[in-house]
Amino acid sequence: MDNRPIGILDSGIGGMTIAAAVNRLLPHERIVFFGDTAHHPYGDKTRHAIAHFCERIVEFLLSHNCKLILIACNSASAAAYGHLMKKFGHQIPILNVIDPIVDWVIEQDRFRNIGVLGTKATVTSRVYAQKFARLAPDLKVIQKATPLLAPMIEEGFFNNNISRTVINSYLSDTKLQNIDGLILACTHYPLIKAEIMEYYSGKVEVIDSTDVIAQEVSNRLEVSSSFADADVAIPDQHFYVSDFTTSFQKATQIFFGRSLKLEEKLIWE
Amino acid sequence: MDNRPIGILDSGIGGMTIAAAVNRLLPHERIVFFGDTAHHPYGDKTRHAIAHFCERIVEFLLSHNCKLILIACNSASAAAYGHLMKKFGHQIPILNVIDPIVDWVIEQDRFRNIGVLGTKATVTSRVYAQKFARLAPDLKVIQKATPLLAPMIEEGFFNNNISRTVINSYLSDTKLQNIDGLILACTHYPLIKAEIMEYYSGKVEVIDSTDVIAQEVSNRLEVSSSFADADVAIPDQHFYVSDFTTSFQKATQIFFGRSLKLEEKLIWE
Repeated sequence: MDNRPIGILDSGIGGMTIAAAVNRLLPHERIVFFGDTAHHPYGDKTRHAIAHFCERIVEFLLSHNCKLILIACNSASAAAYGHLMKKFGHQIPILNVIDPIVDWVIEQDRFRNIGVLGTKATVTSRVYAQKFARLAPDLKVIQKATPLLAPMIEEGFFNNNISRTVINSYLSDTKLQNIDGLILACTHYPLIKAEIMEYYSGKVEVIDSTDVIAQEVSNRLEVSSSFADADVAIPDQHFYVSDFTTSFQKATQIFFGRSLKLEEKLIWE
Repeated sequence: MDNRPIGILDSGIGGMTIAAAVNRLLPHERIVFFGDTAHHPYGDKTRHAIAHFCERIVEFLLSHNCKLILIACNSASAAAYGHLMKKFGHQIPILNVIDPIVDWVIEQDRFRNIGVLGTKATVTSRVYAQKFARLAPDLKVIQKATPLLAPMIEEGFFNNNISRTVINSYLSDTKLQNIDGLILACTHYPLIKAEIMEYYSGKVEVIDSTDVIAQEVSNRLEVSSSFADADVAIPDQHFYVSDFTTSFQKATQIFFGRSLKLEEKLIWE
């Protein structure tokens, strides 16, 4: 038994799709979420800047006595996971959102040409391409940066003609034409999964990593016998942001599935 | 004569549309531009956070011995101008991008219902509405936040069916239906001015503040006899960013009109 919280690090609030999946699978676990809305979005920032931001957030989560840290953002996972492991890996288990889905895709053994949609930070890092090249060298990986998708979703443009037009524009890139699977490598994208599936009409398997990642969190807790006490009624959850706005407050409904109270922590001042 | 540079503060690189206009009108002036790409964009951040960022940037520009500072960003002008004036106004003239265009609109004396398109930070500040209410109380001001426009333009989506669809979606808001003028209150929007004009087919005057602001810089230098020496051949320009990426480097072509060499200054570490 370990009643300490799970720390979830995010660039903004998109990672709440992951936090919600963790909460669904592990309802007895306390969550301390930190979204770096003062620097959001990470997708167009450098590896160096993102690592610098994440380091401070991990310190904040460590001060909340977390038992595990999940980097619930693909850009942060791509840019900062190695740095954070080197700096904090001896103190606390740290999970990223990339390794579990790469392992899952390889295990399925049915993909030959896998597409990856993500931010510029995720795509330029080439982390997906490098991991697949090492673990499954026969699998062809086609990466595509789709930087307008996250702001589009955050502004509420999905399931409408704007999102359809933007999605069609990105997916019609000829380099994606032979893929048999497509990884949604950004925590915002589950909200447009249905539209992407509609674009492909079943010809391509659209891979949303949310549940795979929540399962990985569960596996890690199981291995170390660190589940929280299931007798605790409803555990206390905290959702911190580094810059509070009512827009982010409202958007929790979209990303977490219900309205959450965001708390501001000015960790940068 | 005053050969010291003009300091230009921006949240990212959109303000290069203003820097380019200053450079066209005043080609002998040195420019020191600072774009805060580590925190970019400011449009969805709070007044408090933006003021905090801008304060540090002004210190950086002061250390470059500037003779005048232009806040070339509507979000920063809306959120931080008062704060910066209080803190630095006794040391250096500081201009924002809002006052000149409000004055210009009032001088024209032909507008009755004026629309304002901007980021969330600009619109929620209500700075345009308050300034017009004070200076021209009969003028009706209709503000509209259009947060997807700046990332859309930055990602190169303009003059195409995506920008047309997004623009139509925003402008079809019924609250804008009786406007006779529309202020483009974001430094990115001059790049979609033609499309907005096309939407209105001449029925609404679309107001781009770029040249009005450059003229205001010129007026301020004239009043204080602070123009640079016109005999200096081509003055040295510097364009700094707080986080350098090749995407921003490429985008200088869009915003400044030619490719510029961006220099990185990690002022936040």
